[in-house]
Amino acid sequence: MKTDTSPPRGTRDLLPAAVALRDSVYGTIREVYSRYGYQRVETPCLEDIQRLQGGEGGENEKLIYRVLRRGLAESLPSDTPVVALVDLGLRFDLTVPLARFYANNVATLPVPFRSLQFGPVFRAERPQKGRYRQFVQCDIDVIGEESVLAEVELIEATTDALGAVGLSGITVRLSDRRLLSALAAGAGLPEPSWPAFFVALDKLDKVGWAGVRAELADRDLPAGPVGAALDRVEQLRDAAAKGAPAGWLAELLPGSDERVVADLMTTADTLDRLAANRGISWEFDPTLVRGMGYYTGQIFEIVHPSSSGSVAGGGRYDRLIGRALGRDVPACGFSIGFERIVELLAAPSRPELVAVLVDTDVSLAEAAAAARGLREQGRKAAVVRRQGRRGAQLARLEEWGYTSAVELRAERDPTDELLERPLRSSG
Amino acid sequence: MKTDTSPPRGTRDLLPAAVALRDSVYGTIREVYSRYGYQRVETPCLEDIQRLQGGEGGENEKLIYRVLRRGLAESLPSDTPVVALVDLGLRFDLTVPLARFYANNVATLPVPFRSLQFGPVFRAERPQKGRYRQFVQCDIDVIGEESVLAEVELIEATTDALGAVGLSGITVRLSDRRLLSALAAGAGLPEPSWPAFFVALDKLDKVGWAGVRAELADRDLPAGPVGAALDRVEQLRDAAAKGAPAGWLAELLPGSDERVVADLMTTADTLDRLAANRGISWEFDPTLVRGMGYYTGQIFEIVHPSSSGSVAGGGRYDRLIGRALGRDVPACGFSIGFERIVELLAAPSRPELVAVLVDTDVSLAEAAAAARGLREQGRKAAVVRRQGRRGAQLARLEEWGYTSAVELRAERDPTDELLERPLRSSG
Repeated sequence: MKTDTSPPRGTRDLLPAAVALRDSVYGTIREVYSRYGYQRVETPCLEDIQRLQGGEGGENEKLIYRVLRRGLAESLPSDTPVVALVDLGLRFDLTVPLARFYANNVATLPVPFRSLQFGPVFRAERPQKGRYRQFVQCDIDVIGEESVLAEVELIEATTDALGAVGLSGITVRLSDRRLLSALAAGAGLPEPSWPAFFVALDKLDKVGWAGVRAELADRDLPAGPVGAALDRVEQLRDAAAKGAPAGWLAELLPGSDERVVADLMTTADTLDRLAANRGISWEFDPTLVRGMGYYTGQIFEIVHPSSSGSVAGGGRYDRLIGRALGRDVPACGFSIGFERIVELLAAPSRPELVAVLVDTDVSLAEAAAAARGLREQGRKAAVVRRQGRRGAQLARLEEWGYTSAVELRAERDPTDELLERPLRSSG
Repeated sequence: MKTDTSPPRGTRDLLPAAVALRDSVYGTIREVYSRYGYQRVETPCLEDIQRLQGGEGGENEKLIYRVLRRGLAESLPSDTPVVALVDLGLRFDLTVPLARFYANNVATLPVPFRSLQFGPVFRAERPQKGRYRQFVQCDIDVIGEESVLAEVELIEATTDALGAVGLSGITVRLSDRRLLSALAAGAGLPEPSWPAFFVALDKLDKVGWAGVRAELADRDLPAGPVGAALDRVEQLRDAAAKGAPAGWLAELLPGSDERVVADLMTTADTLDRLAANRGISWEFDPTLVRGMGYYTGQIFEIVHPSSSGSVAGGGRYDRLIGRALGRDVPACGFSIGFERIVELLAAPSRPELVAVLVDTDVSLAEAAAAARGLREQGRKAAVVRRQGRRGAQLARLEEWGYTSAVELRAERDPTDELLERPLRSSG
């Protein structure tokens, strides 16, 4: 009797063709990022539960897989709190572990430190199409560079990487948390209400202006300042559609910090150049918020017409990395939605693989020697036994990824040259 | 104040140089295995706890990280058994998940299926030097090939892979569980006592003959048959040191199955050829047992003079993979001790990385453009700000992996060609 052999709910097995595509995409991204000096580091999948629940993960902290302490008695005393049973959890992102990693290894890391991380993260989310409980994140971060050089480099490297994997038609969206704060302050919103304002604004794409207003009313934010802030957001959006920030930022947000404006101009110049040379689009969008609470400066994301939601996102977060060190450490990161872009990309062309197809009567030694001979010529080859109808088997070999077959028959004269038959029916 | 930023006990952070070595070793192994037609697949790190505790993991089942169910109340009713709180666990090897994977995907997998797995596994072991609670396993398996073709190919591919990563001086050790069973039966040991006999024999390298005899006496195995069995093991060992199995197997184990002897001869022929062509050594060793209970045929391991314990191990296990399908499926695997071989290997030569070293007064645009110019020539380059004493900074750049520096000074004429200075002090 066949028992249930599915992977745990919300997780998945990856078959050879899927892994081949993922490896190829990741290999390309890694190669591009290495040209920019990003060095890969790794942290464990497990972290101390207190660290994961430190408040930096926002909503993701509700989705942590918690791991039991070892050596517990098999039956628990009454009223044991669950928290007493847990000491570890599975990481839900690569940013919280990076902050710990940086503090732990700061003495030996370069300044600035350009980090590339690629690895699995875990979230106990309600399973839904295209969303998994274990998935891969691919992050680059520049730690220890306070200037907009970091933002510009992250955007250039990531658009470069996405172009290299074959994703065309991308749009970079740009905003700045400092600008959003200035806008909220200018409209008279009290500072404690800013996070609620940002969260509501972030939903504009999904719920429209009316939805945003309704949510803000529900949250008891003062109607006057809310209206003023939303008007200003609309003005900024309209102005941004017409030209470079220099022309309208000072006018619409007269109190704006000069450095914020200068930084945005620098990023805008880079984006203009990328638009001219690499065929990407970009827009300044004051309704872009990005979910995480830890952002402190420019925020950005990349969207693609075939994907709802973003295919990459990031920004500056100057107060997270240094928390464990007891001092601020400037940091800026960009995370590629690896699972999303893999869905948008076609399988790579199959690498050659020769099936050495052997009749029952052929000796193992002869079969192995034939495959070895091919390998010694630099070919990829594997022995397969002749089984069932020949035509059907050749068709299956092709399905399985073999690109040609060499047939070894028992009656064959061993001095005859082997005949290779291509299996690739298409392309 | 700096808080504790170590990774969880028994786990570790991997710094750029360590990851670079690991990536390079893994890349080479993957390339060699792909020449033999092995295709990489992936399973989740999480598996259902019942599957992990199904009895196939032996002692490793005691080391499982257990994961709490989601949505538990924060305080538990009295006498709640711990098992009721747990539904998932972290995998402790790649073989138990492979059996589930195979059953789950059998309809679309090649016959035979040549699987390559590379990924983290988790064991809550007592931390000790060189042993980690999260570590990488690298397994190849041939599923659906009942003949010794599988064994021969696994041994050839794995010695090939270890040679390609630069590990020389390896010795392959070979035995056969069927032979060990025949030997125990011939000596008059009752079948239920065989596992205890094998486990004791497996410790010979560590405790010597006297230690093995003492353990067997402790376990109340009958002294007469134990003595006869150990004598026979010694005879086999001595005979094996003198020549090919054909010469002594039939004589020393007259009841041996002909197929077992023929299979060993085939593997011995392959090993002789590898010894002649690839400079490896090999030995037949009847004291080789390999820990796992699921082996059913030939077993083998690879040892290296610089590593206590084996650097790779495997064998045939014809009854594990098909368990979930309700039928036997022939299978044979070889697992490289990735963490161990990485310890034996030197760091790869560093890839080039140019530091574009910029004075404070140089504009970001100019710095970014210089790095971009280098990248457009196919170089790897990253911008670094001038800081502190120049000589000290150049020395640090070299430590951090930069191989040369281009200095951008404010007073420089932008039309001057950039001067590149090598940083590599040694080789």
